Amino acid sequence: MSGKLYAISTGPGASDLITVRASRVLATLDVLYTPAGRKGGDSLALSIVREYLGEHTQVCCRHFPMSADSAEKEAVWDAVAAELYREVEAGKRVGFITLGDAMLFSTWVFLLKRLPHPDWLEIIPGVTSFAAIASRSGTPLAMESQSLAVISCTSPEDEIRQALERHDSLVLMKVYGRFARIKCLLQEANLLDNALMMAEATLPNEQCWRNLREVPDDQELPYFSTILVNKQWRN
Amino acid sequence: MSGKLYAISTGPGASDLITVRASRVLATLDVLYTPAGRKGGDSLALSIVREYLGEHTQVCCRHFPMSADSAEKEAVWDAVAAELYREVEAGKRVGFITLGDAMLFSTWVFLLKRLPHPDWLEIIPGVTSFAAIASRSGTPLAMESQSLAVISCTSPEDEIRQALERHDSLVLMKVYGRFARIKCLLQEANLLDNALMMAEATLPNEQCWRNLREVPDDQELPYFSTILVNKQWRN
Repeated sequence: MSGKLYAISTGPGASDLITVRASRVLATLDVLYTPAGRKGGDSLALSIVREYLGEHTQVCCRHFPMSADSAEKEAVWDAVAAELYREVEAGKRVGFITLGDAMLFSTWVFLLKRLPHPDWLEIIPGVTSFAAIASRSGTPLAMESQSLAVISCTSPEDEIRQALERHDSLVLMKVYGRFARIKCLLQEANLLDNALMMAEATLPNEQCWRNLREVPDDQELPYFSTILVNKQWRN
Repeated sequence: MSGKLYAISTGPGASDLITVRASRVLATLDVLYTPAGRKGGDSLALSIVREYLGEHTQVCCRHFPMSADSAEKEAVWDAVAAELYREVEAGKRVGFITLGDAMLFSTWVFLLKRLPHPDWLEIIPGVTSFAAIASRSGTPLAMESQSLAVISCTSPEDEIRQALERHDSLVLMKVYGRFARIKCLLQEANLLDNALMMAEATLPNEQCWRNLREVPDDQELPYFSTILVNKQWRN
């Protein structure tokens, strides 16, 4: 194989929070694959990297359905993985971009499962959304012997409840559509004063809610809204 | 205040895994503070950023004792925080570098506690060591509704045991000096085949152990050795 495939993490949103390595690789690509189809986030990924792209880089948008039909999703992942493989086989320098970090809650992992991990593949890590939220809000993620849990609000309620009990700090991802339920769990655990919510961190339209008591249950939220909890740190 | 303070995350080790923003800010600093005193890691932080420093940037090394005497440590944190504040007050552009991400297991947080978080402070997030290890080893951190725990091996044994039971994937940090005990816990949980250990990820001397069964209990390890566990992913 004379080509190369790069899975490129774009970081949380601001273009200059991409790594130097990612910015350099982007400038050398023959073709960049970019996912589409998830509310807002995907055109965001492309907008983050656009300023670094080489003049002759071809941009290919691929739609990943959010459907619950797993056969449909698997067919798309198979097809895109095969396409990436063929491009590398043809000697091209190929990129695939993914928001935040490529190995955390990312479509890229479904492609990785379908590709071997040999010399011609490099995964470039990135700044996660929660690291950006911690920095922007001045809230530490963990210190010394503390433990941090990163969980999805799509998890069963009881798992979220136990995680709130056991860990010193928590990142609750995928809050969208589930805020009322999560607020209730935080209240139950007496953690409302140790929690904050952020959306679109590091972007011009960044929003931060430091007092979740004041956020109505039916508050409309951007798709990328995340809650940070730190038991040792009050807002 | 006419000066500015930047807490700058250096990322995991390779110089080009720093963010574009950090690289640009480093070029404009009047003075860069760098921590010293922790085995190996601190000269590493400086070596990561050196190529980006402005020609006239003054480098100030400050020693943070690893002593268990908390009064001694607090006196140092007080003194360094006061020093940073005075530099900003004098109108300087000041940096403080921290390995990995500034808000995760970092000395920076002890300084942040002693400083307000106003306009003249910016924290620049970075790539965590565990994101780098996931990328280098091709091991996902979490997908879909999975949960990830980031814990320190200095935690009580029972907490580590419960985290191994409850989470889909785990990052075990600060393995140094505790490998035999952790290996035993992994074996108990039947997770040895889902774990790998990495040290100095992204650096020329990077090491990866994909079969922990073969690593002797008394294996000498570098200070920055981390274990990644993913229950859905076998090596």
